[in-house]
Amino acid sequence: MPKKRIYLDYAATTPVDKRVMKAMTPYFSEKFGNPSSVHIFGQEASKAVEKAREKIAVFFNCSPTEIIFTSGATESNNLAIKGAVKKFYTEPKNKGIKPRLITDSIEHSCVLNTCRSLEKEGLAEVVYIAPNKEGIIQIKDIAAAINENTLLVSIMYVNNEIGTIQPIATIGKFLEKENANRKRKILFHTDATQAVNYLDCDVEKLGVDLLSLSGHKIYGPKGVGALYVKKGTLLTRIQDGGEQERKMRAGTHNVPAIVGLGKALELVMKEKSKIAIKTEKLRDYLIARVLKEIPQSYLNGSAKKRIPNNANFRFDNVEGEGLLLSLDLEGIAVSTGSACASRSLEPSHVLLALGLKHEQAHGSLRLTLGKTTTRKEIDLVVNKLKVIIERLRKISGDVLKSFQ
Amino acid sequence: MPKKRIYLDYAATTPVDKRVMKAMTPYFSEKFGNPSSVHIFGQEASKAVEKAREKIAVFFNCSPTEIIFTSGATESNNLAIKGAVKKFYTEPKNKGIKPRLITDSIEHSCVLNTCRSLEKEGLAEVVYIAPNKEGIIQIKDIAAAINENTLLVSIMYVNNEIGTIQPIATIGKFLEKENANRKRKILFHTDATQAVNYLDCDVEKLGVDLLSLSGHKIYGPKGVGALYVKKGTLLTRIQDGGEQERKMRAGTHNVPAIVGLGKALELVMKEKSKIAIKTEKLRDYLIARVLKEIPQSYLNGSAKKRIPNNANFRFDNVEGEGLLLSLDLEGIAVSTGSACASRSLEPSHVLLALGLKHEQAHGSLRLTLGKTTTRKEIDLVVNKLKVIIERLRKISGDVLKSFQ
Repeated sequence: MPKKRIYLDYAATTPVDKRVMKAMTPYFSEKFGNPSSVHIFGQEASKAVEKAREKIAVFFNCSPTEIIFTSGATESNNLAIKGAVKKFYTEPKNKGIKPRLITDSIEHSCVLNTCRSLEKEGLAEVVYIAPNKEGIIQIKDIAAAINENTLLVSIMYVNNEIGTIQPIATIGKFLEKENANRKRKILFHTDATQAVNYLDCDVEKLGVDLLSLSGHKIYGPKGVGALYVKKGTLLTRIQDGGEQERKMRAGTHNVPAIVGLGKALELVMKEKSKIAIKTEKLRDYLIARVLKEIPQSYLNGSAKKRIPNNANFRFDNVEGEGLLLSLDLEGIAVSTGSACASRSLEPSHVLLALGLKHEQAHGSLRLTLGKTTTRKEIDLVVNKLKVIIERLRKISGDVLKSFQ
Repeated sequence: MPKKRIYLDYAATTPVDKRVMKAMTPYFSEKFGNPSSVHIFGQEASKAVEKAREKIAVFFNCSPTEIIFTSGATESNNLAIKGAVKKFYTEPKNKGIKPRLITDSIEHSCVLNTCRSLEKEGLAEVVYIAPNKEGIIQIKDIAAAINENTLLVSIMYVNNEIGTIQPIATIGKFLEKENANRKRKILFHTDATQAVNYLDCDVEKLGVDLLSLSGHKIYGPKGVGALYVKKGTLLTRIQDGGEQERKMRAGTHNVPAIVGLGKALELVMKEKSKIAIKTEKLRDYLIARVLKEIPQSYLNGSAKKRIPNNANFRFDNVEGEGLLLSLDLEGIAVSTGSACASRSLEPSHVLLALGLKHEQAHGSLRLTLGKTTTRKEIDLVVNKLKVIIERLRKISGDVLKSFQ
């Protein structure tokens, strides 16, 4: 008989909420029009897209015209950064100048690799700020990195591996002050993919010009995301074609997924505070039990500035990979780092940036809770974890002894 | 009581086939894993993605490793063309050389605007070949456009507005011969979005290196597409991030949509020949009735080299826009051109390229049939069309008289 499975990898992806699915369903086979079509089938689809856009605008406290639909957070981040750089080169006043981008070394690979691509192509100079030991970016480091050619600062709202919350609103205020005395305004972008479920995402309060989000991290569908683009912020589109999304993103609208994204955000808005409190409590219980009951276990990242659903542990003398596989055999799904890098054998760039050694990074495990996670599940996972870690440590001890 | 609606705009988008929806459904909320995750939830999702990839490979007679999933045909076309150009610039032997792209003036806007972007950025020189009066690209024109810096030829398989079928296999053979005597191999790309439902898409027979397709034109979901990339063809990815799709396209896999794309192609493969015969018969009946019963009506494009489901008419002294809106009031959905450009007031660039005058292009109407279209629907549409055209011509005649 198959074991009951426990999923504690909600930072990698979430199931589509039944209510989201219900909202999406009519737009696959029934109201299936192309929103760009003029006739009634097109109008129906177009209305659904615009209604979703309005819901999203309410969530972020912005205007619907400031929301651009994309295929996901990866595309949103590519569009924000490359779009700003491409735009920079279209402006005659910038002739002969290479723009500077400022980001940090613990961003998701879609921000890091976008920056690296631009560097490689010679289109931008990039400063990668290191976080402190808790994974927090310091404003003084941003200040030190700014020069007159600085075009954009991109700092994630919440780190996907260690759950650390960055001081986005404070950075926003700092940049606003900076911009008051500058000819070239510095744009502020944040990847809010991991923040939306739990944190205040009011773009006014955050002081951002660009904000990325994803559907499938918030109980919405995969294959859809959005980019908030503050009025007056000019980007050159990176996906060329038709005139969709005010010529900022070509391609037929993914209508059901867009409807689903709108519904998912509506639900987050309604249920966020309740779920955050419940989840944080459970997560704190998980952390307390692990640190108390498992010897040589440590919490990676910040204990306080942390998203409610994230726990990231390291265990001395255990391989995270072995832990993950042993837990998987027990029907428990966790991760060693970002899903996007999980098939790579490299240690997590995030954990290394915190100052961890390779073996410490390799001995780390990420557990991320969801809105249906129960105390019973947490108990079961901790109990299994204790047994498995003891066993794995014994094996590696025996192996070491056999070499002595 | 609302009228029964008739949809004759299947080239703009198609409803998701119920069998496709059924195949997709488990992957939203139940088997919802991220295929990049190592655990069982990830494995389940990853297996589904690979199974879909295999189905698609069978359809195109290629290896599964030659299929890259994207968010749609627009992205596929962007990736094929920009990816080849970006790769060109990474090769030291190309230093100081600007690559030439050869395409034609009746491509979809996502190919045309991708080429224009590359021109604007100074990254490529582009030759836009004009078709003949029937909308067919001549090989001699491709031959004349080739120079030693030619990197890529991009010719669509079937035009989305007039349904003209291009001689892709013949162009493929011609380029193969050309390449035998060249140091720099010319890549051959085709946008097969409108062809997949009806034509042979065996990439070996076509002789293409790159082929784009879309889910939502073949009774699959929106928000998904693929690019066939022949083994050995090197592209630089345009969406940076994680290591998905052999580092050719970053971003979490849109699992349900990918499963749907696989199922949709499986169904096309099974039912294509039967549906093609039935659809062509109905379409010919439509064309015969219109040309016979409506005075001063003409067929745009080629009568013979035409995809089975497309009819594109022009009517003297009638505005296509007025026709479309009048038909819409009767519950009949058709289009004046591509959905992606349908909110623009410009006349169709495709019809202008055939040598039509502005007013002729404006007097044109596209009707595209689907697999459930009936003879009764065609009869109803032709009857309505006759009445509406007569009325509109009378009104514009009266208006003209009132000025005399």
